[in-house]
Amino acid sequence: MKKFLMVIAAFLASTAWAADPLPSWSDTGPKKAIIQFVEKVTKQGSPDFVPAAERIATFDNDGTLWSEQPLYFQLFFVVDRVKALAPKHPEWKTQEPFAALLKGDMKKALAGGERGLLEMVMATHAGMTTEEFEKSVTDWLATAKHPKTGKAFTAMVYQPMLELLTYLRANGFKTFIVSGGGIEFMRPWTEKVYGIPPEQVVGSTGGLKYELRNGKPVIVKLPQLVHNDDKEGKPVAIQRQIGRRPIAAFGNSDGDLQMLQWTTAGSGPRFALYVHHTDAEREWAYDRKSHIGKLDKGLDEAKTNGWTVVSMKDDWKKIYP
Amino acid sequence: MKKFLMVIAAFLASTAWAADPLPSWSDTGPKKAIIQFVEKVTKQGSPDFVPAAERIATFDNDGTLWSEQPLYFQLFFVVDRVKALAPKHPEWKTQEPFAALLKGDMKKALAGGERGLLEMVMATHAGMTTEEFEKSVTDWLATAKHPKTGKAFTAMVYQPMLELLTYLRANGFKTFIVSGGGIEFMRPWTEKVYGIPPEQVVGSTGGLKYELRNGKPVIVKLPQLVHNDDKEGKPVAIQRQIGRRPIAAFGNSDGDLQMLQWTTAGSGPRFALYVHHTDAEREWAYDRKSHIGKLDKGLDEAKTNGWTVVSMKDDWKKIYP
Repeated sequence: MKKFLMVIAAFLASTAWAADPLPSWSDTGPKKAIIQFVEKVTKQGSPDFVPAAERIATFDNDGTLWSEQPLYFQLFFVVDRVKALAPKHPEWKTQEPFAALLKGDMKKALAGGERGLLEMVMATHAGMTTEEFEKSVTDWLATAKHPKTGKAFTAMVYQPMLELLTYLRANGFKTFIVSGGGIEFMRPWTEKVYGIPPEQVVGSTGGLKYELRNGKPVIVKLPQLVHNDDKEGKPVAIQRQIGRRPIAAFGNSDGDLQMLQWTTAGSGPRFALYVHHTDAEREWAYDRKSHIGKLDKGLDEAKTNGWTVVSMKDDWKKIYP
Repeated sequence: MKKFLMVIAAFLASTAWAADPLPSWSDTGPKKAIIQFVEKVTKQGSPDFVPAAERIATFDNDGTLWSEQPLYFQLFFVVDRVKALAPKHPEWKTQEPFAALLKGDMKKALAGGERGLLEMVMATHAGMTTEEFEKSVTDWLATAKHPKTGKAFTAMVYQPMLELLTYLRANGFKTFIVSGGGIEFMRPWTEKVYGIPPEQVVGSTGGLKYELRNGKPVIVKLPQLVHNDDKEGKPVAIQRQIGRRPIAAFGNSDGDLQMLQWTTAGSGPRFALYVHHTDAEREWAYDRKSHIGKLDKGLDEAKTNGWTVVSMKDDWKKIYP
């Protein structure tokens, strides 16, 4: 009886989807392209049919599933960690980039670019066990607010993309995150927020060490970068962690370009989509000249290759849930 | 109508399982322990209930899911690759360990231990694209035979473990391989043979490089070892690739000890099992003093911690399918 009810529920759900699987998307090109692709690869007997096991879809996170301005959200976490850990690190008072950051001079603190950032990430993330780190992320997300919107960071995910993730999964796709963000910064919340479990999150990774502490096994984070999951690093991490080529990939910056190239170079039907940040009013507008989420080469290749480009301003009725 | 038939099929299947989910297992301690654990963690409302998403089970491959004597099966592949590639490498005629191997002196070829082996693995695997490598594995498995049994290598998987994998999945578990073997050597066939898709295979990994060849993106294997998925490397790879701690782990050697420690050190119900090779007649008998699949410390810890130990001779009615 229970199973019978589940069949009814599944039937009703599929009917509901048929009505409009993507209600926050305007009835413009991108929505049509997505639905056309999904219907094509799921239609039994069609020459474009793809077995469910091969329906792998990969999503960048920063700027594709949630906002990334004025800074990658993980950096706000790092800044707060530096402040929290400062009493234990008196040397930071004179050591850059920590000193500037503690004086509130964000511009100077971030002037060192990626190298300075990485130093802060390492200093604040390493030495903890993976469980301690997970707790620090969860605790921070529970109270931290975005400086401009005042929203919780996990409330700044894109409603249209949440609908897209659900729609793809309802059609047998397996959805993965493939992000430049730290893998352990994302995993504590991606299942709850996106419905993507930890084992389907690919990201930048630091060193890890297994050891016994008081006879109890722990895994400790080490101050070394093992994999930078950006640009060429994305197809490499996809190969290493997923082990097969996606048939659909979603990004928003030049850092996602190689993932989109790799995805679309496979045989059979393929789908690539760029989220273009064009909405200065409801979100942010930036592309070719942005320091964060630069979309320049990618925009050109999208045109050349006929990839789908979403204009947030024109193609999305709603930004946040 | 199709869905209704599927419900009937599912009902019949579940009845069949209820009759005996593990027909190739004798009705001895290990079988009872497995069933007791599975019933406990899947019983809604029980204090030991574990939500399906957290039912992660990890399996070593060599010696746990298939045989590993007289050599890890991947080494037979490497030997055949060396022979196939020899015409392109005249220098191998005088360069060890290649020279000994090409003369058929396996003992000398393998005398260099892990280092010499690794050299051969690198020399024969690196430089190929991941697609070329996958094809070489698939082609080899289609014709290669085990020197003692004359069977195809993929026919030397353990029937009781196939039943166990199916039983766990039927109870909502997600089954993963966590093996010292090369990740790209396993992925081409684990789905077909074990029902484990590529993205649920964790293993040793070499360097990878994304590049354009004639304008087409490829991923090329590099001659470097990035992760040795053995001993302490197993919990580390579990953390990195799966991102959560298994609740059940299955191994056969000291190389799996840390994975079993890590698994059982978590809170809530946990299950650890060692396959003990005790059947010289139907398979091989070896443990504390074996060069391949040494089980020494692990056997002691299993006793101390009350882990389940399967005697292949006494607890399995059947070895191969």
